[in-house]
Amino acid sequence: MVGASSSSLGRNAVRAFSSSISQFFHGIHVFQCPDVVGVVAKLSECIASRGGNINCVDVFVPENKKTFYSRSEFAFDPARWPRDVLESDFQKLGRLFNAERSIVRVPDLDPRYKIAVLASKQDHCVVDLLHRWQEGRLPVDISCIISNHTRAPNTHVMRFLERHGIPYHYLSTAPGNKREQEILGLVEDTNFLVLARYMQILSGGFLQAYGKDVINIHHGLLPSFKGGSPSRQAFDAGVKLIGATSHFVTEELDAGPIIEQMVERVSHKDNLRSFVMKSENLEKQCLSQAIKSYCELRVLPYEARKTVVF
Amino acid sequence: MVGASSSSLGRNAVRAFSSSISQFFHGIHVFQCPDVVGVVAKLSECIASRGGNINCVDVFVPENKKTFYSRSEFAFDPARWPRDVLESDFQKLGRLFNAERSIVRVPDLDPRYKIAVLASKQDHCVVDLLHRWQEGRLPVDISCIISNHTRAPNTHVMRFLERHGIPYHYLSTAPGNKREQEILGLVEDTNFLVLARYMQILSGGFLQAYGKDVINIHHGLLPSFKGGSPSRQAFDAGVKLIGATSHFVTEELDAGPIIEQMVERVSHKDNLRSFVMKSENLEKQCLSQAIKSYCELRVLPYEARKTVVF
Amino acid sequence: MVGASSSSLGRNAVRAFSSSISQFFHGIHVFQCPDVVGVVAKLSECIASRGGNINCVDVFVPENKKTFYSRSEFAFDPARWPRDVLESDFQKLGRLFNAERSIVRVPDLDPRYKIAVLASKQDHCVVDLLHRWQEGRLPVDISCIISNHTRAPNTHVMRFLERHGIPYHYLSTAPGNKREQEILGLVEDTNFLVLARYMQILSGGFLQAYGKDVINIHHGLLPSFKGGSPSRQAFDAGVKLIGATSHFVTEELDAGPIIEQMVERVSHKDNLRSFVMKSENLEKQCLSQAIKSYCELRVLPYEARKTVVF
Amino acid sequence: MVGASSSSLGRNAVRAFSSSISQFFHGIHVFQCPDVVGVVAKLSECIASRGGNINCVDVFVPENKKTFYSRSEFAFDPARWPRDVLESDFQKLGRLFNAERSIVRVPDLDPRYKIAVLASKQDHCVVDLLHRWQEGRLPVDISCIISNHTRAPNTHVMRFLERHGIPYHYLSTAPGNKREQEILGLVEDTNFLVLARYMQILSGGFLQAYGKDVINIHHGLLPSFKGGSPSRQAFDAGVKLIGATSHFVTEELDAGPIIEQMVERVSHKDNLRSFVMKSENLEKQCLSQAIKSYCELRVLPYEARKTVVF
Repeated sequence: MVGASSSSLGRNAVRAFSSSISQFFHGIHVFQCPDVVGVVAKLSECIASRGGNINCVDVFVPENKKTFYSRSEFAFDPARWPRDVLESDFQKLGRLFNAERSIVRVPDLDPRYKIAVLASKQDHCVVDLLHRWQEGRLPVDISCIISNHTRAPNTHVMRFLERHGIPYHYLSTAPGNKREQEILGLVEDTNFLVLARYMQILSGGFLQAYGKDVINIHHGLLPSFKGGSPSRQAFDAGVKLIGATSHFVTEELDAGPIIEQMVERVSHKDNLRSFVMKSENLEKQCLSQAIKSYCELRVLPYEARKTVVF
Repeated sequence: MVGASSSSLGRNAVRAFSSSISQFFHGIHVFQCPDVVGVVAKLSECIASRGGNINCVDVFVPENKKTFYSRSEFAFDPARWPRDVLESDFQKLGRLFNAERSIVRVPDLDPRYKIAVLASKQDHCVVDLLHRWQEGRLPVDISCIISNHTRAPNTHVMRFLERHGIPYHYLSTAPGNKREQEILGLVEDTNFLVLARYMQILSGGFLQAYGKDVINIHHGLLPSFKGGSPSRQAFDAGVKLIGATSHFVTEELDAGPIIEQMVERVSHKDNLRSFVMKSENLEKQCLSQAIKSYCELRVLPYEARKTVVF
Repeated sequence: MVGASSSSLGRNAVRAFSSSISQFFHGIHVFQCPDVVGVVAKLSECIASRGGNINCVDVFVPENKKTFYSRSEFAFDPARWPRDVLESDFQKLGRLFNAERSIVRVPDLDPRYKIAVLASKQDHCVVDLLHRWQEGRLPVDISCIISNHTRAPNTHVMRFLERHGIPYHYLSTAPGNKREQEILGLVEDTNFLVLARYMQILSGGFLQAYGKDVINIHHGLLPSFKGGSPSRQAFDAGVKLIGATSHFVTEELDAGPIIEQMVERVSHKDNLRSFVMKSENLEKQCLSQAIKSYCELRVLPYEARKTVVF
Repeated sequence: MVGASSSSLGRNAVRAFSSSISQFFHGIHVFQCPDVVGVVAKLSECIASRGGNINCVDVFVPENKKTFYSRSEFAFDPARWPRDVLESDFQKLGRLFNAERSIVRVPDLDPRYKIAVLASKQDHCVVDLLHRWQEGRLPVDISCIISNHTRAPNTHVMRFLERHGIPYHYLSTAPGNKREQEILGLVEDTNFLVLARYMQILSGGFLQAYGKDVINIHHGLLPSFKGGSPSRQAFDAGVKLIGATSHFVTEELDAGPIIEQMVERVSHKDNLRSFVMKSENLEKQCLSQAIKSYCELRVLPYEARKTVVF
């Protein structure tokens, strides 16, 4: 998971200084620790003691497992509870409960998540992300697009990127040369990566070096149809439902923890082309939903292969 | 909402006495009060102080409204936190926060909810409820069926009721004579009522005298198609989606707070008969889902016409 | 596919004799042949020449394949087009076009499909089928239930079977002894078999000897989770959607042509028990939908692994 | 419904002349007439006699009504069956059966449908249509956008329109001045109109003068929530499902024949803003699906208030 940096002043530095006027900000806190009695009490007591008003809580403790997960939303006055104190308070609670995770985020103060988007030849997911971003529905900063395919300058994507000042890096790949070092260099300052139908497999070495989350969209309903041409695989298998899966990338291909899945019906009337079109529609929705949930701190890893999605 | 009586010994009195062996029970608490800072803290602190371990919390505070809603699930040892102390602790918290609602329920100790089911001529909802009940999927005691239609003794329903010792009360109705007094007499010891396609309108006087919740299934997607023959209305309106709605009954016909809604697609190929068949299938699922949520204390009234369904 | 026998008088012999009164019956015809120009013309011309009035047609020719599929519904007067002439007319057309399939069925004249249902320990699919049958929503005759598990006489299922005079055959199985010969003996006069969570694998020898269709419900979304414990497999895989699949049984386990699939959402809140409960609900709906489509002659094999479902 | 003009040469004039090389085109024919015996036979015989190969047929005759609807797709060789002969053949059949409708369309030869899109302040439907059009997923020519709101030149929409040479006509409206004459002047050469969240009501006079189909998207699940602010109405009504409806425009507000409807779940967690966002997502999908079906000749009026959608 990604921690929000509190050291730099956010885009709303003005607000931070107008603390003389009591103004409430919205905070999100996620917590994951070994389960014991009293976690909710301590967390909520901390928030209350700082004048914070909780307006949403989700707590989940799996059956027979000893892990505690929570996600809280609260309103607070930064005049009374400054951002850095907020940070240290929750870190303290994290240490108290030996937490795997104690992350707080204040969307209106903290820098937006910075992402890079990797794509190959297929356009649809990248375009959909760019449109949503431009409409304000994707709360991230897009640092660059990286692709192993070129795109002509007068295409919709390239013109869009040019107008919005988003760099496009063409890094051709070949067997044995995934350009991973160069990719790392381009993305090291991002908070997470989005593979928007990027068809190259990132190595374990890359994932370890990058060290942060990578979200992928797979155009099939995992664990069915891993690997290539899932639409073709589904078509040949005679399924009546096709789907898309967004998941965290791990070393194992198409096997990382699933974040979201969506399906649509197909019938004998669907040919491979309409399988693909329906799949593309699902991929767009499924990927953007996963990114949105992730940015809202709703997604937490759960055991080896699962996620809690609050 | 219904409070679970803690004064009578439940079916599991044996367990209550085996408190020498530490055994954890599952408790559910719902709370509704004017929103202030510190409610979650106080509630969770109370549970923790009694050794209770929270494993699920849902908190909801609507935007700009001043109401706080929560639903918590926790494990507790009745040796350490006896049922009556549990009850009084939460009542105390209710008074502290001037709560509209502070209800705790321990499914394994408290008596099951006792319901009466009212039906008219249509069988499908009653039959579905009886089957689910018999399979253990409907955690209620059915005190009786009340109907304004007779049913022949050798029908599936009547044989089922006979075998399980559930009385069937035939109370014919006529304009001006809804038999409400007699119904009240039969249902006064129930926790809530289920109208399973009961086609008579219960008066405001009845609802007030009964004083507890009444759940109805309407065979249309409210607020469309209120009143009679919603399938016919939908068929004539040329809709492409039909639905069912389960809701609390109020004086206003088909206008009480909605608990659950379900839809299914229809097309030109559907005639009135298939509209009705699809509707019946939805009604069964929608009604049983509403009852299940209600019994699990997931349903809370929200403003005049809505519900929170955790 | 199953051909309807026209030699025996159906349950509606009375109607067959009242042909002096012009009365229209509903006929269904399915046709599958190598695609050429003029098939629809010939089929519809045949129907029209006999005074039949087509009220529904579905024609499907896959892209680049050379197979023609059609399903027609028409109204006809048996006084003008007797049942046996109907049969021979469509057989003639079948020969004309070298058809793999030319099947006509008149639900109101022909005997109902006769099925046997095989089950193991799990009850829910059998019970659901029996209820639907009893309510008239499953247009088959159930010749018997065959199970490799015993059921106590006072259980709901056994009482139901007793009341309706449906035999229950307990045939215990062991590795190396699938009792297939005995099963064959019991089912040889059925039109098709339904495996309602029957957990034994029928051998290729059995399928060949039986020679008719066998419909199975698999409690997973094929091709994911073949074989045993698909709910457990799905639970461990961290999927967000679970499903059920009804399909024709072939020698290869869980790989025969898929007829219908249904899904439902799951989340971290679902434990294995609720995965199973949601799955059971899907299995019931998916299996009965497949049987209904099959009985209405809507299901046709398509290439090696698929179906056309009109 | 719109008839495709065969008099003008389509974009594929080149293909039309290369008839010396046998090449098959794809034709779509829809037919609506009083139901009698033999319609399918005559239609299919006509196609077969011209060497046309039918690969898809949908026939629908409503219960107890006397209307016959069909939609056929067929492959034909224009060398053998020229476009103008195709047209006259089907017109002849139309006269033979006294048809309300006998329309044939050859997408690869005929001009694309020409539409104008009307919008008000809300952007999302227009933008989605433009994107789909630009990606080749909306098989129409967009002659212009007409709006009663201005848009700044550097907005995404305006830049897009400029780049693609699509005129934007700002026609401000006021009570008593709907600018309908000017709109008529701008749209008279279109095949149909799309109201993409155009908030003015077109008068009966306009509809009559325009004389062709007008498709509207209503941001509510009709017949619920007609008129203004359906999201607000739905929010206040406490529904658990919201939807969008695309329909033909008639004189009666939001009451014309429904073409398509889509729903999405909402809960207490949704505020008015998320109701609107979910609604916008549905509106985009619902409107484009309706336009796609319409362009493929799948939508036929059925009785006063319904549609057949093949």
